[in-house]
Amino acid sequence: MELAEAVLAGDRLALARLLTQVENDTPAGRAALDRIFPHTGQAHLVGVTGSPGTGKSSLVNRLAQLYRHPKNGEAPRKVAIIAVDPTSPFSGGALLGDRVRMRDLAGDPGVFIRSMAARGALGGLSRTTAAAANVMDAAGFEVVLIETVGAGQSEVEIARLAHTTVVVEAPGMGDEIQAIKAGILEIADILVVNKADRPGVENTQRALRAMLEMGHPARGATGETDELWLPPVLCTTATSGEGSEEVAKAVDRHAVYLKRSGEWQRRDSQRLRSELELLVQQALMARWRGGVSEERLAELVARLRDRQITPYAALDELI
Amino acid sequence: MELAEAVLAGDRLALARLLTQVENDTPAGRAALDRIFPHTGQAHLVGVTGSPGTGKSSLVNRLAQLYRHPKNGEAPRKVAIIAVDPTSPFSGGALLGDRVRMRDLAGDPGVFIRSMAARGALGGLSRTTAAAANVMDAAGFEVVLIETVGAGQSEVEIARLAHTTVVVEAPGMGDEIQAIKAGILEIADILVVNKADRPGVENTQRALRAMLEMGHPARGATGETDELWLPPVLCTTATSGEGSEEVAKAVDRHAVYLKRSGEWQRRDSQRLRSELELLVQQALMARWRGGVSEERLAELVARLRDRQITPYAALDELI
Repeated sequence: MELAEAVLAGDRLALARLLTQVENDTPAGRAALDRIFPHTGQAHLVGVTGSPGTGKSSLVNRLAQLYRHPKNGEAPRKVAIIAVDPTSPFSGGALLGDRVRMRDLAGDPGVFIRSMAARGALGGLSRTTAAAANVMDAAGFEVVLIETVGAGQSEVEIARLAHTTVVVEAPGMGDEIQAIKAGILEIADILVVNKADRPGVENTQRALRAMLEMGHPARGATGETDELWLPPVLCTTATSGEGSEEVAKAVDRHAVYLKRSGEWQRRDSQRLRSELELLVQQALMARWRGGVSEERLAELVARLRDRQITPYAALDELI
Repeated sequence: MELAEAVLAGDRLALARLLTQVENDTPAGRAALDRIFPHTGQAHLVGVTGSPGTGKSSLVNRLAQLYRHPKNGEAPRKVAIIAVDPTSPFSGGALLGDRVRMRDLAGDPGVFIRSMAARGALGGLSRTTAAAANVMDAAGFEVVLIETVGAGQSEVEIARLAHTTVVVEAPGMGDEIQAIKAGILEIADILVVNKADRPGVENTQRALRAMLEMGHPARGATGETDELWLPPVLCTTATSGEGSEEVAKAVDRHAVYLKRSGEWQRRDSQRLRSELELLVQQALMARWRGGVSEERLAELVARLRDRQITPYAALDELI
């Protein structure tokens, strides 16, 4: 348990080592995760997602700087960045503009940056990301920014880990991409149109507002608007920093809303429940694998391949 | 079993109804899947994947037309199209240019088109797509084109279902997207640069060839080149149809290679094995859920939320 204790004490090297254990899903990593769990539940988990090329990394970078150097005289907050790359299941590369970040945030002990690539099975990435967020949380980071590239289902799953999900768009994307947004919009707590110096910003903003209204027709019509959250659509130019402060403020307002409405606890429970169900699934599959020989499994697969048995018949023979 | 029998007899309405059962994962659908399983294993499953806006739908459309109206005097082949939309887990919409297809392929009994949207959990989409491909296969379609939008991990999973994976690119995409390709390239059996009438085609083609060579450094150097498959990089203009025939020919050549090298059987076994493992997982989880009350689970989640127990302690109480 040395590693877990060192992480809880704020040791950055231990933190990096534990994250590697978590990524590789080692028994030691799992034990350490269980050890640090009672110290989680403090951080604000913020997902930032969007298609490639929308400038998510720049925005995340700006937000981190604002948390470190608040302009309104507030105390700086410790911030962790988890950059998730679900598009490279084989290479394990880190693509998400780390070098740019390193230049601006390097040497600040209140910032910790980690890139995570997909390994192994589908669903593995969201498990690993959830675990990494827990580690950052237990290590005392007050805001954990979880950045995911792309607009696929895995990103949606990852966004669900967060208390607050920021969806970043850029003006002037094609119709197909516009349509794709419909799904992504349903998970957005805050919408950002980045690259607001480019033409087409107003159109994009208008289209997003229209989609939001379609997606939430009841909002504002129930007479309980103070209990509801209508996702704001904000404009930023992340390269110059313009608009980033408004995004940071909206993220803070959303945290207040979540806590006041009970939604924070509900989202936490939902996340913990699916983490628990994944643990159950892993444990059941591990137990099953321990009871069946590789030869037996290979023999059944060969009979399936030759269409001598059906999948359910094979299942009956297996469990 | 009436539904399964009707599908095997070539009834299109029954086929559409079974696909709906499969999408909704009903007990009747599962039973029918098991019934038709012995009739699968004949079709060539071809995955077509790529980022939004690369023109995958047009290419798939062109390929379907070529299979229906072969120019070299061969017999027409029955072709099914499964258009997978993993980006819309909530809306269940079908975005993939179906209207264009309808116009060109409508009324041809040798063509069947189905859009599938993600439902439920991660991994659900690849299971549903695999099942739908099996249904098309059993119904006598000789080529099953599985089209996936996006470049995320779910698409990679879906591509793994196929015997042959075609990755479609377009010239002039940004650096971030270029980098993302590295992961996608490792699953490509055939690479297509679509929109070859646009500037930058040579650059894109050259970049893809360079990436392929990096990814497969041993290829061509082993002295066994006749046993290996070096993914071709082909150019098309899907709107005019130019180059589509070369893609269709490459797909056929790949099928010959797969069968000669034993790779066809290996890929089939791999797919059937993961389908079987998913069935085991479903069965184990269903059995577990049957033995635990919702109250018990909710109570454990509440204790987790309040950090009174750790996830592993909760697991110990559950199984």
